Amino acid sequence: MDGYRILEIKRSVFENNDKDADRLRQQLKKDRTFLLNLMSSPGSGKTTTLKKTIAALKDEYRIGVMEADIDSDVDAAAIEGTGAKVIQLHTGGMCHLDADMTRQGLEGLGDEDLDIAILENVGNLVCPAEFDTGSVKNAMILSVPEGDDKPLKYPLMFTICDCLLINKIDVLPYFDFDIEECSKRARRLNPNIKIIPICAKTGEGISDFAAWIKAETAAWIG
Amino acid sequence: MDGYRILEIKRSVFENNDKDADRLRQQLKKDRTFLLNLMSSPGSGKTTTLKKTIAALKDEYRIGVMEADIDSDVDAAAIEGTGAKVIQLHTGGMCHLDADMTRQGLEGLGDEDLDIAILENVGNLVCPAEFDTGSVKNAMILSVPEGDDKPLKYPLMFTICDCLLINKIDVLPYFDFDIEECSKRARRLNPNIKIIPICAKTGEGISDFAAWIKAETAAWIG
Repeated sequence: MDGYRILEIKRSVFENNDKDADRLRQQLKKDRTFLLNLMSSPGSGKTTTLKKTIAALKDEYRIGVMEADIDSDVDAAAIEGTGAKVIQLHTGGMCHLDADMTRQGLEGLGDEDLDIAILENVGNLVCPAEFDTGSVKNAMILSVPEGDDKPLKYPLMFTICDCLLINKIDVLPYFDFDIEECSKRARRLNPNIKIIPICAKTGEGISDFAAWIKAETAAWIG
Repeated sequence: MDGYRILEIKRSVFENNDKDADRLRQQLKKDRTFLLNLMSSPGSGKTTTLKKTIAALKDEYRIGVMEADIDSDVDAAAIEGTGAKVIQLHTGGMCHLDADMTRQGLEGLGDEDLDIAILENVGNLVCPAEFDTGSVKNAMILSVPEGDDKPLKYPLMFTICDCLLINKIDVLPYFDFDIEECSKRARRLNPNIKIIPICAKTGEGISDFAAWIKAETAAWIG
């Protein structure tokens, strides 16, 4: 800590979007739709996790997925055919979604007849954490190859998430990743965070995530 | 492409920062300092790659490293003791660095007696690609576990980088990652991109990256 300086660079001021987010949640409550905001780094396995999770939930719930991306449609194409409604949202270069963008997405999806809407946010551990999308709950994925130090480096993301999926546990033998240590770091920021180790590729742990979504949906739509 | 809609969401307008970037490059030229901007997702191995690269270059060059992060100092602590000057930049939540922030960092580092300055940008494949930092060259790391589809999903990042390091090639047997396919996708966006497969952990390929930096530094400082 002695050999280098820490320089505080000024950040730009974002518009306050909290009012929009609260208004959207009120609408979702009225529509009896549970909205989950799923976040992670690029390549952590959001889309594969969603595919497996939809398969576990689709017989019981009407599900809609919003795939947010800069400008590709790789993810929506992957979700198509899973039994969920899907829409690709292009953010035009934006690194996150805010509540108004999410509202546009839900409108495009037609949320009025959905039990569960899932927003796959842009792959990014920074900006999406700063904007309330109007979601009922936030979940994030951290994959084993990314390293167990991520709660130290992206604390806000771990603080605002209700559920942390630790993905790619099949490759634990090939990486220095300590699940216990990572969980401790996450819980230090967020004592109530639900932590679920999964392997989206094999489906391991997906039933636990699906059970969490079911319980949260029941709590929301009553 | 038929089963879902693509909705274009409006992006906010960023301030034009190109003039600041050009001014910074002119200053770097005068100071005979080569500035490299290194970008990647969280957990791709930027810091480990830098440590190994500094070891390969430090006997020949005076090197300074700017570690940009939201608010931790994990990375600067890791670089300390490598023989490079290091400064931790806190972005106060910002997801990228622009030219003026980079200038502040260089000032903090004291760039006037450096041959090579390296900016480790915030872990993010989106926003850092949109802001010219004033760097002479841009490099990025894509790690094998992130997937070979990333050029399709983050095209701007691959377009603006002069050098692409494909890291963690030691775990290729455990992931579906096709280096040839990934390289083709990157070259479709950026035909002149230099692609170097590496394993930062074992040091494989680092000498090729160091040789690229040497050649680019020589071309810049003459």
